[in-house]
Amino acid sequence: METVPARRGRAVRLSAGQAIRIVNTHGTQVVDTWAFNAADPGEFMSMPHLHASLGSVFPAKGDGLVSNRRRAILVLEEDTSPGRHDTVIAACDVHRYQSLGCSGYHDNCTDNLHAALALIGFPATGCPAPLNLWMNIPIAADGRVAWGEPLSSPGDFVILRAQIDCVVVLSACPQDMIPINGKDCIPVEVHFEILD
Amino acid sequence: METVPARRGRAVRLSAGQAIRIVNTHGTQVVDTWAFNAADPGEFMSMPHLHASLGSVFPAKGDGLVSNRRRAILVLEEDTSPGRHDTVIAACDVHRYQSLGCSGYHDNCTDNLHAALALIGFPATGCPAPLNLWMNIPIAADGRVAWGEPLSSPGDFVILRAQIDCVVVLSACPQDMIPINGKDCIPVEVHFEILD
Repeated sequence: METVPARRGRAVRLSAGQAIRIVNTHGTQVVDTWAFNAADPGEFMSMPHLHASLGSVFPAKGDGLVSNRRRAILVLEEDTSPGRHDTVIAACDVHRYQSLGCSGYHDNCTDNLHAALALIGFPATGCPAPLNLWMNIPIAADGRVAWGEPLSSPGDFVILRAQIDCVVVLSACPQDMIPINGKDCIPVEVHFEILD
Repeated sequence: METVPARRGRAVRLSAGQAIRIVNTHGTQVVDTWAFNAADPGEFMSMPHLHASLGSVFPAKGDGLVSNRRRAILVLEEDTSPGRHDTVIAACDVHRYQSLGCSGYHDNCTDNLHAALALIGFPATGCPAPLNLWMNIPIAADGRVAWGEPLSSPGDFVILRAQIDCVVVLSACPQDMIPINGKDCIPVEVHFEILD
C-alpha cells in the first residue's frame, strides 16, 4: 500500500483495465480525485457531465464516471462506504482559505493537483471539478448545501477501474477550518494500491 | 434589443459596471451562460466554485457569481422569474445528443460557445460548466436530478452586472429531445440588451 500524506497529493498512471483501491484509513478524510486521459490532458473526468449521464449528483457502485467527452474514464467498481461522495464543490485553493480567514499560505487541493502532475511530467493545466471522495455535502430541496462530516468508517475503500489509459490524481484534502474532514478538523493520510 | 436566434449563441463584451439584461421572450427557453475575464481567458465564471461561495446550488437576486478565482465576475442584480436556474449540468454537446439517440449532427451549446467566441476573436478554449438560466433541474435528497420544464413566464428577465471587464456568452439551448425547453420541445429565440 502506498501513502498519500496528510495535506498532500499523488498522481499515478493506470493502464486500461487496471484499478486503484483508495482506502480511507482513518475514516474521516476527504480525497479530491481527478482522472485525465493519459494521451490527451484535454479530456478529463467531469462532474457536470457526470450529473447528466447518471441523472444524479451521487455516483454509486457500478457507475461509469464520464469525461467531458461523455465516455467512462473510470468505473466505480466497489464502495464499502455509505456512498456519500461530493460532486458539486470545487477543489479548495488559496482563495478559499483566504475567504475563510486564513492570512498566510494554506495547503490546498488545487496546488496539490498541479504539484502531483508536475512530478510525473503530465501537462494538464486548469483544475476540473473533482470527485470528492467521502465529502458529505447534502443538498436541500431549496438548493442549500451543508458542510457535513464524512459518513465513512476507518478502512472504507473505493475501487476505481480505468476504462482507458489514464492519470489519476488524489489529494488528501488539507481543509482544517470547517469540519468536512471530521469534527476535529484534523487532515490525515490515506492509502492506495494499484490492482491489475 | 438584440436577438439570440433559436439554437444559436452570441458573445458580447461588457466593461466593468455595464450589465446585460437577458429576456426569456417566450418563457420556455433555457439560456446557457458563460463569463470570461476579458484580460485572461483562464479566469471564468465557475459553478463548482459558486456552490462553495453561496452555500447553495441556486443563485438568487443579489448574489455574486464567482470565477474560478473566487471573486465575483458578475452579479445577479435582478431576476423576475421564480429563480430556478441550473448550475450542476454540463452544456450539451454532440456526445450528449448521440447518447439520446441522435445519429447526425445536432446543434449544441458547447459548439455555440466556441463559435460565438471565435466570432469576436476571444481565445478561450474548453467549456466551463455554464449557468443554465431558467433550466429547471430539481435535486432530490437522494441526489437524483429531474429534467423539469422552465418555471419562467414570457418576458421574464435577469440582469447580470459585470464586476470586471468580461466576455459574456449566451446560447439558446438547442435541446429538443427532452423537455427542458418546455413540453413542446421547441427551442426558440431570446433577446438581450446591454445596460450602462
